[in-house]
Order: sequence, then structure tokens, then C-alpha cells
Amino acid sequence: MTKANELTATAARAAIDAGDLTSRELVDACLDQVERRDAEVGAWTYLNPEIARDAADKADQAAKNSKATGPLHGIPVGLKDIIDTKDMPTEQGSALFKGRRPVTDSTMAQLLRDAGAIIMGKTVTTEFALTAAGKTRNPHNPNHTPGGSSSGSAAAVADHQVPLSIGSQTGGSMIRPASFCGIHGFKPTFGSISRAGMHPLARPLDHPGIYARSLEDIALMGDVLMVKDPLDLDMRGHPKGNLVEAVAKDAVETAPRIAFVKGPMWEAAEPYMEALFSDIVAELGSTAREVEMAGIFDDALDCHSTVMMANVVANLGDFVRNTPDQVQKETIRRVKQGYDISAEDYVKAIEFSDTIDAAVEHMFEHCDVIITPAAPGEAPEGIDGTGNAIFQKLWTLTGVPTLTLPKLQGPNRLPIGVQVIGRFGHDADLFRNAMWIENAL
Amino acid sequence: MTKANELTATAARAAIDAGDLTSRELVDACLDQVERRDAEVGAWTYLNPEIARDAADKADQAAKNSKATGPLHGIPVGLKDIIDTKDMPTEQGSALFKGRRPVTDSTMAQLLRDAGAIIMGKTVTTEFALTAAGKTRNPHNPNHTPGGSSSGSAAAVADHQVPLSIGSQTGGSMIRPASFCGIHGFKPTFGSISRAGMHPLARPLDHPGIYARSLEDIALMGDVLMVKDPLDLDMRGHPKGNLVEAVAKDAVETAPRIAFVKGPMWEAAEPYMEALFSDIVAELGSTAREVEMAGIFDDALDCHSTVMMANVVANLGDFVRNTPDQVQKETIRRVKQGYDISAEDYVKAIEFSDTIDAAVEHMFEHCDVIITPAAPGEAPEGIDGTGNAIFQKLWTLTGVPTLTLPKLQGPNRLPIGVQVIGRFGHDADLFRNAMWIENAL
Repeated sequence: MTKANELTATAARAAIDAGDLTSRELVDACLDQVERRDAEVGAWTYLNPEIARDAADKADQAAKNSKATGPLHGIPVGLKDIIDTKDMPTEQGSALFKGRRPVTDSTMAQLLRDAGAIIMGKTVTTEFALTAAGKTRNPHNPNHTPGGSSSGSAAAVADHQVPLSIGSQTGGSMIRPASFCGIHGFKPTFGSISRAGMHPLARPLDHPGIYARSLEDIALMGDVLMVKDPLDLDMRGHPKGNLVEAVAKDAVETAPRIAFVKGPMWEAAEPYMEALFSDIVAELGSTAREVEMAGIFDDALDCHSTVMMANVVANLGDFVRNTPDQVQKETIRRVKQGYDISAEDYVKAIEFSDTIDAAVEHMFEHCDVIITPAAPGEAPEGIDGTGNAIFQKLWTLTGVPTLTLPKLQGPNRLPIGVQVIGRFGHDADLFRNAMWIENAL
Repeated sequence: MTKANELTATAARAAIDAGDLTSRELVDACLDQVERRDAEVGAWTYLNPEIARDAADKADQAAKNSKATGPLHGIPVGLKDIIDTKDMPTEQGSALFKGRRPVTDSTMAQLLRDAGAIIMGKTVTTEFALTAAGKTRNPHNPNHTPGGSSSGSAAAVADHQVPLSIGSQTGGSMIRPASFCGIHGFKPTFGSISRAGMHPLARPLDHPGIYARSLEDIALMGDVLMVKDPLDLDMRGHPKGNLVEAVAKDAVETAPRIAFVKGPMWEAAEPYMEALFSDIVAELGSTAREVEMAGIFDDALDCHSTVMMANVVANLGDFVRNTPDQVQKETIRRVKQGYDISAEDYVKAIEFSDTIDAAVEHMFEHCDVIITPAAPGEAPEGIDGTGNAIFQKLWTLTGVPTLTLPKLQGPNRLPIGVQVIGRFGHDADLFRNAMWIENAL
């Protein structure tokens, strides 16, 4: 029998409903797994078994009393440590915020609690969700990085320490760790999940996202979190996700038109990626073909850097200038990249990003879904770095929804994801098409 | 009998409908007035009587053939020379664009034509809608400025050369000229009128606006122009204006709560403004009272400058660097103010402007409408400068709708406007309240 901590959230939810599992048993199984593996994986920066067990007992009691239960009733989840929680510290991976206890929950934490989820703890982030790595190691091989910045959230889900977690992506911080850790990752359309109570790194680019071990699980959590919130001024007026409905088996019918793209990112791809993706395209059949990316995309990566680093220096510059001894060298190096950007170049980059948005939208006139690698290859060796974000930046800049499916393996038998990209604001269509691709591979 | 060119657009429209006036007669009367006065006022940079008469004849013919007529059927209008028209040059007041003929109409020009309006010609703008003055003089006294940047649009309407015109405001370019010229001016909520085909000065701040000699006329044109357009990425999803309905007499019932504010702008007000506004508040009765502005607004003017000048240098910097001999000294001086703004400061200003937005929104919890001067006083003497925009910048930055009512006179018997400010996105309420105030004064 599958151990409780290895169940997907959807399966665990069904078992709880059927009376075959209690939330307390599920949480205990997850905590046992953390205990067994934490020394090697190091996914958590804060985890208090008492808080988790107490919340699980309360959930079980509420169910016994026939109280209405939410879609995540009794399910343990992990939160990246840049997302405020009123009952746990939120430290942003930074010495400056050691022991900081937010007074209130972030909107995400509140929505999760309202849906019945058990917030297990806070997962390791790189410092300020930038690139200075934390303690987390890749669950598939501790000598390799789990990716970052959402290192702990990805590793915890991959290692069956929790079925669901939240991360965030400003450069490539959601999809790359999912690829390296061999799980499903989802960065929804920009402005779909509220960032109120989440530490900002670069507001025009910050996307919260979801990790799970199945598409159904991501949909389950997505429908809980994709809710308009006036506290986040960049929220779009999109209709509710309806992702659960979208991934229901019978909703997947005709083959989508699939465009495989390499783009300017391909220069960073490992040599073995060529064969892996040739095979993927062949396996998907006549509905898939390689599509050239227009020349305009050559400048998209620089545009992303300008937008990101200008905002990074606005958010972190004072920490680096005023308390450099409390900030990691890698963070200082990165923040300094933003010092010399002029407002003129920033405004031009923002303008140019609208042109890139239009060019991506134009690609979807000729296809339903885009596929491309989720990373240049397997997780690199060593845990000082977190790998290269080059395969995410364009889709972060343009704010389109992307998923990664854990479908490939590299020469070191480490996982690699197939990134699946949809139209801005059409997240449910992306899930339908990703489900088709997942079934086809 | 009132001469045709002195009729409001609403009255002219009714006379045309009743068969008492033709569009050709109206256009001829306006052209006669231009001929009489152009040497002194200089409101137009392009005016081709043949094009105007031909369009008027066609409008009259269409009406005779009982074709459906639009809300501006047969009414001549002036367009600021930064707004593209396919049949006339659009030069932006710049030697660099001398004789430039756009291939297509701006969205505004297209909407006006669709509504039956006769585009009379292009009105004088300061160079690039910044502060280097054009040839236009104040119709009330040619030794005084008409204000700017929408100098010609305001002067033409004030001088009965046309009943309606379009200007734009990035700093104080709509409301100040209206105040100086003694007419009604309207800057709608940011994102209400499409700027597709309008030369950008600072995209986060550029607002097209409307001049007329009555609130009803502004409403008439507002309902034509306030239409969502996918070509302007900053368009808000506001419902249609419904301004005509809002200014209908029977819609004005209970007295609005009126807040008179001075704010950090008051330091620039002429000494005589104190008494003029005391009288206004007294005249409005117990529903009006002076309200202190919170300390946060002290930094709003600097915030506006940072946002504006960063965008100005992004739009005009290359002209100044590459062809300085073709750009006026005043423009060069202004553009250079943007050279040294860092992206960090720009991002912080954009963030801070959200806080100012919230502070303005908060003011409307305690009042329905805000009043304040439309300018520091009368139009200054001389036509080299265009006056001080300080009483507009806060409302431009926050994007709230504002109107000016020509209700006051200064010591030189030149007009001064009462600026009336509403809640973001609530333009129809602003018109209702402004009508109440106009009737009360």
C-alpha cells in the first residue's frame, strides 16, 4: 500500500473523505518523512510539528462534527519563506529578517487556511528569492542543486514530505526547481494569484506558483489561490481558474497544435537536449512541429534583466548599502547589477516588453500550446549555485502561464521537465493541453 | 441672434436637427471667426477651409438623405497637433516633424468622424506637448499666455473659433489653459480615452481631454471618446461615460459634500486667490468646507516629476542627443532633467504613486468632490512661458477625473477656473457634482 505521505493531495483528500485516512495520520506520515530525510534534503527553514498536528486534529474534529470542509481539507502544504504567516516566522532567507514574525497572514496563507489546508511550515528560499543558495539539496542526488529560488518548496514535494507547496518566480524560480526535482510546477498568468503579504523582489515580474506531484493536484490548489484580491494592485480581472474542471479526463478531446521552440535560450541547452526533444516531438506525432522564434525574441532576455534588476535594486538596494555585512556576497553582486540602470532604459524596457507580449500572443495564432525545455538540462552538480534561469525568463517577462511536466531524464539519471506554455489569461486551456501532452508521452 | 460660431455644440446640434442651421453654415461662421482673429490669437497650426467645407457639405447631404447621424453630426472640432489625422499633417509642434503626414487616423480622430464631427484642423501645441511655447496668444488679452501645452485647443474654443476641441495633459496641459482662457476643460480618469495615434510624452501620465464652453458639450464629446480600445494598453475597463445623462438637469438633486483643499500647491497661489476661494466656499454653503491634505501629498509633486521626466527622456532623449539644432532650447533644458534619474528612483516613484492614489481615494471617504484652484491665478503676462502646472500635477499623477469651471476673475479681469475633482473611474459622478456646483455659484 502507498504510504500516506506519498499520496497525491487529490488521492489523500478522497481517502479522508472516505474515512480511510485522517488528516492527523497524513500529517504524521509527512513529518516522519521529514525526520528521516531532513538532514540530507534540508527543505525546511521552519517546521513546528506541534502546530501542524494541532491543525490536523482540528481539521479531523471539524469533519467529525460534519462541518463543511474546503477543497484542501486536512492537506499539508509548504510555503516558501517569503510568504507571510501569522503563526510562523517569515525570514526571506535573510539574516536581516531572522526571527521576524508577521502580524498577519498573506492572502495566500489565508486562502489556504480557508480551504482547510494545514500549513506545515516554511520552506527554504535563496536569500530574498534571488540567487544566493540556501541549504537545500536535490532529493534525487544530494550533490546536486534542487534549483532555486524556490528550493525548499520543490524539494519537499519531490521528496514526499508534503504533497503541495507554494513557490514564486521572478526569473526562473518556479519552473527550474520543478524540472531539477522531477515534479510538476505551475506559474500562472501574471496577476492571477495575490502577492499581498509576499515579499516583493520585482513587482512587474513576481509570480507565485504551485508545486505538486500531479497536474490534478496543481489544479486543486490553483482553484483555491487564483482569486482576485484588491490588495494586489496588479491582479487581473480573470475569471476563476476552473483548473480542476479543465484537467478532468473527459475534458481532453482533440489534439492541440503544439509548437516546439528553441529560441535564443537554446544556446544554453546541454548537447543531449537535442535528441531528447527530437524524440518528444516525434512521440507527439503530426500535431507537433518545431517553430522558429522571431528575431525580436533575441532581445527579450536583456529586457527581462533590465526590468528585474531595476526593481531588485529598488527593493534590496538599501539593505546592501546600509547593512552589507548582513547580506550574502552573491546577493550584493546581483543587486549591484541594478545600480547603473537609468530610468530612460527602464522605461524603454517596459515599452519593449509590450512588444514582446504582442509577439508571444501572435505565436498563439498558429498553435494552441508551446513546448520547450524547462531547463538547459539536468540539475548541475554542487549546491552553491541554483542553475540557469534562461528557459524561464521570456515567459516570466510576458506573464504567460507555464507548466512543467517531469517527463525526461538526463545522462546522470536526474529529471528534466518539458515546459508547456499557454496564452496569457488562458490557464484552463493550458491545463487541458498539458493533460493531453502528459497522456501522449 | 447668437452667431452660429458662438453656439455651444449642443445648441448647434439641435439647430441642425431642427433644420435651422446647416453644418456648412456653422463651419463657415467658424472659419470667418478664424479669419478675423487668427493674426492675434494664432490657435491653428493647420487649417484647410476646403477640407472643412467639403466635410460639412457631405454631412449636410447625408442628413438630407436621411442617413443616420451621429451625436456630433456636422459639428466642427479642433485637434491638438499631437493627434494623428490621415488627411492633415501632424507635427507635434516640432521642426523635426514638419510636414509629417500620418498614414492613418488616431483612434480619437476615427471616433470623432464616426460620430459625424467635422475635423476643422490642428491646433498649436508646445513643442512635443512639453513647455516650449508656440505662437498662440490668450484671446482675452494677447499679451498674456493662453497656457500650454494645449494652447491652440483652449484658445480656439475660448475665441468661438470652434465649439469643441481635444487637448492632452501629462503635467497640467489641459486644465491650466482652460483656466487661463476661461472655458470648461475636462481630463477624464486615466485610461478612459484611447491614445492610439497620439504622440506619447509620458505614457503613465498622458491623458487626452476635452475643451468646450459648457459642461453639456464636454459630456457630448466625452461619451463619443470614452470607449475602450485594445490599441491603448493602458485603457481601463470602465463602463461607458454616460456623461450626457449625468449632466441632464434632473439628475442633479442633493448637495454633494464638497472638500476645498489647498495642499502643497497653495505655496504657488497668488495672494488674491485666498479671498476668491473663501468666497467660493461661503457661496457653496454648509455642504462645503476646507479640508487639510495629509503630509504624504508633500512628496507628490516630486513623484510626478520623476515619473514624467523619466518617460520624457525615453521618448525625446534621442531627438535632443541626435538633432539638438532642430529642438528648442526649452525642450532641451527639460529633457536633460530626465537624464540622471536612476531606474531605482523611477521604480520607487511608481511604487509611491500607488500610495498617493490610495491617499486620494481615502479623501473621498469623507467627501463627494474636491475643489481647488485650476491655476495659481490669472494667465501670466508674456507668451514665452505657459504658466505653472502645480495645481494639476497631483491629479494627473493619480489619474482621477478633473474638470475646470470658468467661474472667477483676477485683478486684470482675466479668467480663473475652479477645479473640480472626482473619484478615479467615477467620471459621471464628477459631472453630476460639477453641475451642482456650477448652478450654485
